[in-house]
Amino acid sequence: MKMYLPILFVVSLLFSYSHGSVLDFCVADYSLPDGPAGYSCKKPANVTVNDFVYSGLGIAGNTTGLIKAAVTSAFVDQFPGLNGLGLSMARLDLAVGGVVPIHTHRGGSEIIFVVEGTICAGFISSSPNTAYFKTLYKGDVMIFPQGLLHFQFNTGNIPALAIVSLNSPNPGVDFTDIALFGNNLPSAIVEKVTFLDDAQVKKLKAVFGGTG
Amino acid sequence: MKMYLPILFVVSLLFSYSHGSVLDFCVADYSLPDGPAGYSCKKPANVTVNDFVYSGLGIAGNTTGLIKAAVTSAFVDQFPGLNGLGLSMARLDLAVGGVVPIHTHRGGSEIIFVVEGTICAGFISSSPNTAYFKTLYKGDVMIFPQGLLHFQFNTGNIPALAIVSLNSPNPGVDFTDIALFGNNLPSAIVEKVTFLDDAQVKKLKAVFGGTG
Amino acid sequence: MKMYLPILFVVSLLFSYSHGSVLDFCVADYSLPDGPAGYSCKKPANVTVNDFVYSGLGIAGNTTGLIKAAVTSAFVDQFPGLNGLGLSMARLDLAVGGVVPIHTHRGGSEIIFVVEGTICAGFISSSPNTAYFKTLYKGDVMIFPQGLLHFQFNTGNIPALAIVSLNSPNPGVDFTDIALFGNNLPSAIVEKVTFLDDAQVKKLKAVFGGTG
Amino acid sequence: MKMYLPILFVVSLLFSYSHGSVLDFCVADYSLPDGPAGYSCKKPANVTVNDFVYSGLGIAGNTTGLIKAAVTSAFVDQFPGLNGLGLSMARLDLAVGGVVPIHTHRGGSEIIFVVEGTICAGFISSSPNTAYFKTLYKGDVMIFPQGLLHFQFNTGNIPALAIVSLNSPNPGVDFTDIALFGNNLPSAIVEKVTFLDDAQVKKLKAVFGGTG
Amino acid sequence: MKMYLPILFVVSLLFSYSHGSVLDFCVADYSLPDGPAGYSCKKPANVTVNDFVYSGLGIAGNTTGLIKAAVTSAFVDQFPGLNGLGLSMARLDLAVGGVVPIHTHRGGSEIIFVVEGTICAGFISSSPNTAYFKTLYKGDVMIFPQGLLHFQFNTGNIPALAIVSLNSPNPGVDFTDIALFGNNLPSAIVEKVTFLDDAQVKKLKAVFGGTG
Amino acid sequence: MKMYLPILFVVSLLFSYSHGSVLDFCVADYSLPDGPAGYSCKKPANVTVNDFVYSGLGIAGNTTGLIKAAVTSAFVDQFPGLNGLGLSMARLDLAVGGVVPIHTHRGGSEIIFVVEGTICAGFISSSPNTAYFKTLYKGDVMIFPQGLLHFQFNTGNIPALAIVSLNSPNPGVDFTDIALFGNNLPSAIVEKVTFLDDAQVKKLKAVFGGTG
Repeated sequence: MKMYLPILFVVSLLFSYSHGSVLDFCVADYSLPDGPAGYSCKKPANVTVNDFVYSGLGIAGNTTGLIKAAVTSAFVDQFPGLNGLGLSMARLDLAVGGVVPIHTHRGGSEIIFVVEGTICAGFISSSPNTAYFKTLYKGDVMIFPQGLLHFQFNTGNIPALAIVSLNSPNPGVDFTDIALFGNNLPSAIVEKVTFLDDAQVKKLKAVFGGTG
Repeated sequence: MKMYLPILFVVSLLFSYSHGSVLDFCVADYSLPDGPAGYSCKKPANVTVNDFVYSGLGIAGNTTGLIKAAVTSAFVDQFPGLNGLGLSMARLDLAVGGVVPIHTHRGGSEIIFVVEGTICAGFISSSPNTAYFKTLYKGDVMIFPQGLLHFQFNTGNIPALAIVSLNSPNPGVDFTDIALFGNNLPSAIVEKVTFLDDAQVKKLKAVFGGTG
Repeated sequence: MKMYLPILFVVSLLFSYSHGSVLDFCVADYSLPDGPAGYSCKKPANVTVNDFVYSGLGIAGNTTGLIKAAVTSAFVDQFPGLNGLGLSMARLDLAVGGVVPIHTHRGGSEIIFVVEGTICAGFISSSPNTAYFKTLYKGDVMIFPQGLLHFQFNTGNIPALAIVSLNSPNPGVDFTDIALFGNNLPSAIVEKVTFLDDAQVKKLKAVFGGTG
Repeated sequence: MKMYLPILFVVSLLFSYSHGSVLDFCVADYSLPDGPAGYSCKKPANVTVNDFVYSGLGIAGNTTGLIKAAVTSAFVDQFPGLNGLGLSMARLDLAVGGVVPIHTHRGGSEIIFVVEGTICAGFISSSPNTAYFKTLYKGDVMIFPQGLLHFQFNTGNIPALAIVSLNSPNPGVDFTDIALFGNNLPSAIVEKVTFLDDAQVKKLKAVFGGTG
Repeated sequence: MKMYLPILFVVSLLFSYSHGSVLDFCVADYSLPDGPAGYSCKKPANVTVNDFVYSGLGIAGNTTGLIKAAVTSAFVDQFPGLNGLGLSMARLDLAVGGVVPIHTHRGGSEIIFVVEGTICAGFISSSPNTAYFKTLYKGDVMIFPQGLLHFQFNTGNIPALAIVSLNSPNPGVDFTDIALFGNNLPSAIVEKVTFLDDAQVKKLKAVFGGTG
Repeated sequence: MKMYLPILFVVSLLFSYSHGSVLDFCVADYSLPDGPAGYSCKKPANVTVNDFVYSGLGIAGNTTGLIKAAVTSAFVDQFPGLNGLGLSMARLDLAVGGVVPIHTHRGGSEIIFVVEGTICAGFISSSPNTAYFKTLYKGDVMIFPQGLLHFQFNTGNIPALAIVSLNSPNPGVDFTDIALFGNNLPSAIVEKVTFLDDAQVKKLKAVFGGTG
């Protein structure tokens, strides 16, 4: 007994530096300003294990639309414990015939694990100018290098489920169709910078809700 | 037709810079020197889609040992396409009663997705001095912040499967037991720096194969 | 005189650490392996001021094609002194009516300075889902945030010249048209992942040289 | 028509994660605290294209002083859209005989493009201990590696204009003369740490406004 | 004289960009929110040289406890000038027989310089699975690579003093004993994830103050 | 006994990923090419604890020259274990009256610990335009922010010893005097870019060995 008390005394000395407010993590406090490195940190007294656990990927996304697919994300806006830690996740649900349209992420590379089903996945490189694509089966993993256009679609006859991870807590998702046809970019500019025909642009603007 | 050729001409001008040897990725060439940022890059002519796909996580690890668990990794040493891209993956198979012993990764944070079963997972922070742990169910995600000790064990009555992703292509795995009891560190030093009893150290050295 | 010699003596002591081979820079040696951080370094004895100067941006690109524009780059493949230094440049020549089609860079943000003429430039963000575009006049500067689709076209009645800088020595250029219509990605996949009509895809594949 | 509504429905599912407040960029809000990574981000509703465009480099600096040169910068303090994006720009106006005195930047490398005129530019390396300098002509580009002393002066008989880019939104500019002779560093200390003569130091302190 | 005034005029032009609020450093303001990159910056008017100087390492730590050692840190929580600068320091006082127990730092590598005495120091790598340890004498330096378990103990017959530096302003210190035996992690979990015996765990929990 | 063998079996499964060649560190192999991130890594079989220990800082530098000071460095060129780890060290010996002349480091911040004696140390910031300097006593620590000019000189009446650490394995040292007066930069250019008098420049060129 006598032995323990002195050790405890020194232990508290060893930890004199841990009485400050800087933590081993920085859980997002959405009510404070955010900066280039992410959100401000929640006060330690308010952090619990629930900040580090997220259950939103446990539920399949709705795949009843025409693309028959859904992306459900666990990015820092949904999952505050990711803040500052350089990782995020998402689940891809692809019904039979489902497709995740071609897109990029402004931040980070992506790795995919096929939980169930059969998925054709690929990315396009400009150097060399090549599309790398392959059919992935249950248990396969594929890496999509940073910043390159990539896509996934179900090539099997059962629904497919995949888990993806990206090395940014806030990687963004830039679907090319939404970028071109789903915002305020005028059709004339879309056509000029893509060489797409006017009829094609207007047809897809109607689909994706673009104005202008 | 006349229209196409002039465009092609300009396109090739636009891409004059893509004729060099620097690619959009750097697939590991294990035969060349590695450096602090990873392996040297494979020559473009030798890169195929198979460098970006890995099937080794499709097979369950052997969980018949006493810890009843197995970690199967897709790190850069197994999966050359990860080189330089800041991501890796691993699968955790935990039989009923299985446990992934406490460990750290020298590089990167870790995110886990429970594919099947029920897993108690947690990490320990020194600031504040707290263990954050919780039972995770199918579909739950948990983040283990960079550099902190963490663990997982099956708390259910069926085998569990989880997929983890780390934001380093080569994160390392430092099991505390192996570090303390599974190498050339003499028992006298282990005891001095851990306060463990001599009998305990020797017992675990026998288990983990430590010498000295 | 007497005063100088002792100082010189100490100076050489002060510089004892500069006799090693690690330099203040790492000029690319294209003949050695490259890695995730760039090319290997040229031996010091072979480095001259010419490794840090590049004259290739002094010549206007050929804008006689249908897009009436040309991009001439000073990336690490052309300009070895950039290796490891996190910067590159390019010149944009846009004849009257010229357009630099929509594209991304896998690495880095881009800043543009209009040297001559009038250019409409813009980028598209997914968060918020908005196109930010504006007419730039001589002397204007615009920033295109990392990873987002962007474009430039001449809106004036004289040729335009702009200089762009990117914060990567090897930022890549991924023109969406080339990615979709200029490589081995089969038309069926292009259509599936873009929602473009078959006729449109085939028309542009003919323009951009795509196969499959 | 019937076809489009279902797609729109799924598109909104695809973008459920974009309704949060984390943007694709972080325009500086000068009224909020700044941190090591830059300024806090402006609220999305207040961001416009004008945050990404800066016109201050369109006007030549005043070169009527004795150094006959002026540096006009587009750093994050002038141009809020640069915040967090790792890039900035400046224009150098050098009248005949004009000189940008020797200086360093605490953050980032610098690349220069000569728009007009003839400029001798150079930098000094300690390893190897060498000055790399050369006369640059219209269209030439030179790289100044991170942290090294560099300078530019007009060697032609017409005014020169150059555009420089640095891979930091806030690179700083540390003119050696201002550092040594333009602040509160006492003459005795300047002399001790530079080996300059007292008369020289006092003469330049008078020029550059140093006290002490 | 006439010569000086014009220069001063131009100098002020040269420094027009330095009138903003972004400084060359970011001294921590503990009263403002912190984020993933550190604390918010103190207002320039409140920064003094004392923010960059810390005297807390001048006093030997108390080594009268059973471990006969003390770690006194100059991390960002004690020393605000370190904020954002990627460095910190600590002093290790080891009485005769003193030991700094095995630990990791979640951020950064560590370098040690022995000021006085004789210290056995080492670290454990998993790849290869090896302990690297050696007796260090006055003046010796050792590097502990990022994220690996390491320790130091006095092997001499006089007190030892060492200075360590870490490349993070807030590296954290995770003593394995405190992590396992000094917090709320239940004994049953500790035993499950470490293979330590129940008696051993309970004995050390009593020493290190663990609950549960 | 029966119990141990199965555990060992699973342990080897757990470590199946550690059989590759990627290590937990990257000790410099000076005989292989270096790149922007540092030297290539030594083969694991050739790494010993001696790669991580350096004894060169145990010997006082020669302070008999006129500046009465010496800098002895443990940078990656002397100490291969630092490669890729973001840290280095140096010792400063300052005899009575000794001075480490004003200098910058192209990479990293610097932290100093005064082991013995009294040292006046300072750095100069351009934003705000201020010199921050102070007399440091035994045990004091000071931080010199990245890229700024700084200096140290002995203000006491006994020799002083300090240990500095920098957060780069290869930070470089750029003494302003050597840069201006100790290489091939012609006097005419030195004078033009510094405003120093011709006599002053020639006097110091003679001291520091400059040519041209």
